[in-house]
Amino acid sequence: MRWVRYSADGKTGYGLLEGDSVEDVLGGPFGPFRRSGPRRPLGSVKIEIPVIPPTFYTAGINYSGHARETAESEGKPLRLPKAPDVNYRSPSALIAHGEAIAIPKDASDKVQYEGELVVVIGKLARRVHEKEALSYVLGYTIGNDISERTWQATDRTLWRAKNADTFKPMGPWIETEVDLDRMSTTVRVNGTPMISFRTNDMLFGIAEHISRISRYVTLHPGDILWMGTDGIPSNIKPGDEVEVEIGGIGTLRNPVVAGS
Amino acid sequence: MRWVRYSADGKTGYGLLEGDSVEDVLGGPFGPFRRSGPRRPLGSVKIEIPVIPPTFYTAGINYSGHARETAESEGKPLRLPKAPDVNYRSPSALIAHGEAIAIPKDASDKVQYEGELVVVIGKLARRVHEKEALSYVLGYTIGNDISERTWQATDRTLWRAKNADTFKPMGPWIETEVDLDRMSTTVRVNGTPMISFRTNDMLFGIAEHISRISRYVTLHPGDILWMGTDGIPSNIKPGDEVEVEIGGIGTLRNPVVAGS
Repeated sequence: MRWVRYSADGKTGYGLLEGDSVEDVLGGPFGPFRRSGPRRPLGSVKIEIPVIPPTFYTAGINYSGHARETAESEGKPLRLPKAPDVNYRSPSALIAHGEAIAIPKDASDKVQYEGELVVVIGKLARRVHEKEALSYVLGYTIGNDISERTWQATDRTLWRAKNADTFKPMGPWIETEVDLDRMSTTVRVNGTPMISFRTNDMLFGIAEHISRISRYVTLHPGDILWMGTDGIPSNIKPGDEVEVEIGGIGTLRNPVVAGS
Repeated sequence: MRWVRYSADGKTGYGLLEGDSVEDVLGGPFGPFRRSGPRRPLGSVKIEIPVIPPTFYTAGINYSGHARETAESEGKPLRLPKAPDVNYRSPSALIAHGEAIAIPKDASDKVQYEGELVVVIGKLARRVHEKEALSYVLGYTIGNDISERTWQATDRTLWRAKNADTFKPMGPWIETEVDLDRMSTTVRVNGTPMISFRTNDMLFGIAEHISRISRYVTLHPGDILWMGTDGIPSNIKPGDEVEVEIGGIGTLRNPVVAGS
């Protein structure tokens, strides 16, 4: 099932996507719902951020390739994390599929994409066992963890390096049925494939993350967890178009523009 | 004016506190409102978290005394931050005035308070000049930045050290009229004063924070910014009661219990 959050006729709400048409729903993905119609062509609606998360978690370093290549490029020894210590991102940085990534005027040219699988929590999760953890997931969407590397290296925190306005494209929708082990993530810039990796080839898996987080922190419906990225990304610049495709979910596409 | 968010008769909403009674309001602090009555004794209602923030910012090291004493106690050289690089906390960790701080079973005995001034943003703030920054503030409340120091020292992030469930008491209400330069913050444990400092004696002031953040990140109504703490705190344990008093606002009081 594909949940789309969208605006049409001055209203914003959830619908179900089938093929190229979306059907209005009463209720939504985090509670009871029923199909209410009308059905519209997807191309006629404005796709919105698939969920506004109460809390926005991120896995950080979670693929050995990314960790290894980053260490090599910085001339540092490889240090893989020993436990899934999540971090936070800012909901205010989220933008929808199709919306523009605006590069701040005083950013360096080292602004880069990171294609990520996004887990959307569906139910209150507290002290969840790893075996049952995936049953707390509503579904999956796609994120692009835009990062300004100079600020990332010099600021005390990642507040603007990874959370400046428009730096967190997410979408286009939430897919509830996936086969994690068969999925791959591909990033393209202006149509050229740049990075491709097996989506589920993580240092710490989704179930392990949910179980560990929920040991200390209650997860709420709508919370999102970005699962990290693999490979070494390149710079993007105004005029570019970035796509993150994850097989079985879809393609998140955003243009890049010069910000103010 | 004092905005209290509270529950009574099965409903949760905002009211205005005058003396010891709170009056129901139609609307709320982030838009138009009018007093609607009834008026109730404050003691008869359940005080809630004063706002559920879209984004939860924290100033980190923002008092020279705290920085100096921490450096001395760790035998490290003093390094004051050069710019106000904010960080994020988790809204899911917030609890209200009177609710219990639950210490996780596997926490060390180094669980400590940090009394902080909390700024509540009232209006959309984007690229705000320092001179006008305070006009974007709705008001001020009080926070207790509970921290488990062992996790803080060993985890890669502060996710559980500072964001475990119940680790962010905030309240009891939002005061809109304050005289920042005349305020002092006092932390008491079981009635004994532990730390007292001038609230506005910050490395980077409130206006400077708002101006700098809003250069890159749009602030939204209801966003909160915790301004940091001064002094060296002590450990708290189940059975204790912690109070943070800020002159001109009030007293945030929370019992400490053993968690699971």
